[in-house]
Amino acid sequence: MIKVSLVGTGNVSHILKSAMDAAQGIDVLEVYNRGNLPHMESEGTIGKSQPDIYIIAVNDDAIPFVSQQFKETKKMVVHTSGNVSIEALPKNVRRGVFYPLQTISKSCTIDFKEVPLCLEAENEDDLEVLRNLALLISDHVYQVPSEKRKQMHLAAVFANNFTNHMYHVGSEICRANDIPFAILHPLIQETARKVVDMPPKEAQTGPAIRHDSKTMEEHLSLLKNEKYRALYTLLSESIQDTYGKEL
Amino acid sequence: MIKVSLVGTGNVSHILKSAMDAAQGIDVLEVYNRGNLPHMESEGTIGKSQPDIYIIAVNDDAIPFVSQQFKETKKMVVHTSGNVSIEALPKNVRRGVFYPLQTISKSCTIDFKEVPLCLEAENEDDLEVLRNLALLISDHVYQVPSEKRKQMHLAAVFANNFTNHMYHVGSEICRANDIPFAILHPLIQETARKVVDMPPKEAQTGPAIRHDSKTMEEHLSLLKNEKYRALYTLLSESIQDTYGKEL
Repeated sequence: MIKVSLVGTGNVSHILKSAMDAAQGIDVLEVYNRGNLPHMESEGTIGKSQPDIYIIAVNDDAIPFVSQQFKETKKMVVHTSGNVSIEALPKNVRRGVFYPLQTISKSCTIDFKEVPLCLEAENEDDLEVLRNLALLISDHVYQVPSEKRKQMHLAAVFANNFTNHMYHVGSEICRANDIPFAILHPLIQETARKVVDMPPKEAQTGPAIRHDSKTMEEHLSLLKNEKYRALYTLLSESIQDTYGKEL
Repeated sequence: MIKVSLVGTGNVSHILKSAMDAAQGIDVLEVYNRGNLPHMESEGTIGKSQPDIYIIAVNDDAIPFVSQQFKETKKMVVHTSGNVSIEALPKNVRRGVFYPLQTISKSCTIDFKEVPLCLEAENEDDLEVLRNLALLISDHVYQVPSEKRKQMHLAAVFANNFTNHMYHVGSEICRANDIPFAILHPLIQETARKVVDMPPKEAQTGPAIRHDSKTMEEHLSLLKNEKYRALYTLLSESIQDTYGKEL
């Protein structure tokens, strides 16, 4: 049985708790918030169960401060951020990272088995503990050092945050023209499904890759929002840069 | 039985033929290419079956020229483009549009029943013929006039073409850092799945909407490609414009 205490009450903490409660072999002892952090001086007190791992699932900015409260513990202390180095945790503890690479909102019911978990620790024993824990809740467990994790997080900003903004712009164009956005849903699903079959570079279609400047000009004239026009132009240029001028 | 002849041998023609062959009540008489266009003067010749509809599934630029070959027919002539007006077809024929709003490549097996079909015709009788045909192959049939269809096509450029480019940039960052792109697949699927549950405006996450300028600066310093840096900045600005400064 691996014993875990969660620190933080946001989406990541929430979803980790659900996944761990549903798994065999994990005991979630506590979910701490900022107001009820444990007193480390009492660690080991008879009668009070101690976790093997403290999982600090708080905002990136709060990680140094919150984790500092655990600087005296002999247990592992890990954070769950994609973009924060393992070094943000207190120097003298057994540090680690337990980063779920997924867009997590409380309301969504995701199958956690499908969420990639990116792990980091400072020695093989601690990594093994994290790996054992991770494999109980996910089928996709990776060891990823801090520098690589930051690049991965950056890639995720494009594949998730910026992609969602593309959906938003599409939905705004629909709204402004009394078109139900649902008409675009199958296209969005199919575009996403395709990346599993072929690299996105091969799946690219549209006026930019065809150098269809007549359509591009028409599209620019339809766009009233200046920022959207700038996005259209820059995205089209970036697509054309990707494929050279010969296509 | 609705009789159809397809003109063109590209992806759209291919996928329409498959869907129509599989459907009850549609007879695909011919698939013409540019070299074997039918001789209109022989229309009505005894013994030669005539279609009810000619579907011109060729590149946008070729639609005026190819459809001109059908200017004498008494049958309906429709094109399949999102961005071309119904006016591109010859003036004196019964004109229409039969636009499948989907990213179509020959290799993909899509369930055509899920593909939205956008129809246009110049009178109610012709629209009825198109609607009857469309409902035999798709569960999502809409009547969409040319101007709205162009806006829809523009929205689709964001939701499909530009989204796919976001995937490509993500995959490039992975490649440059020896990260398997497959690690991002679940995130991409979940981002797409979410639009069905909530408007993309509500689903937005990431450093830009949080005004997390420390992370954004770090990301910019990680990006070596100048175009990608410009995209990162402009997309972040556009996200921040969307939500105002108060968040």
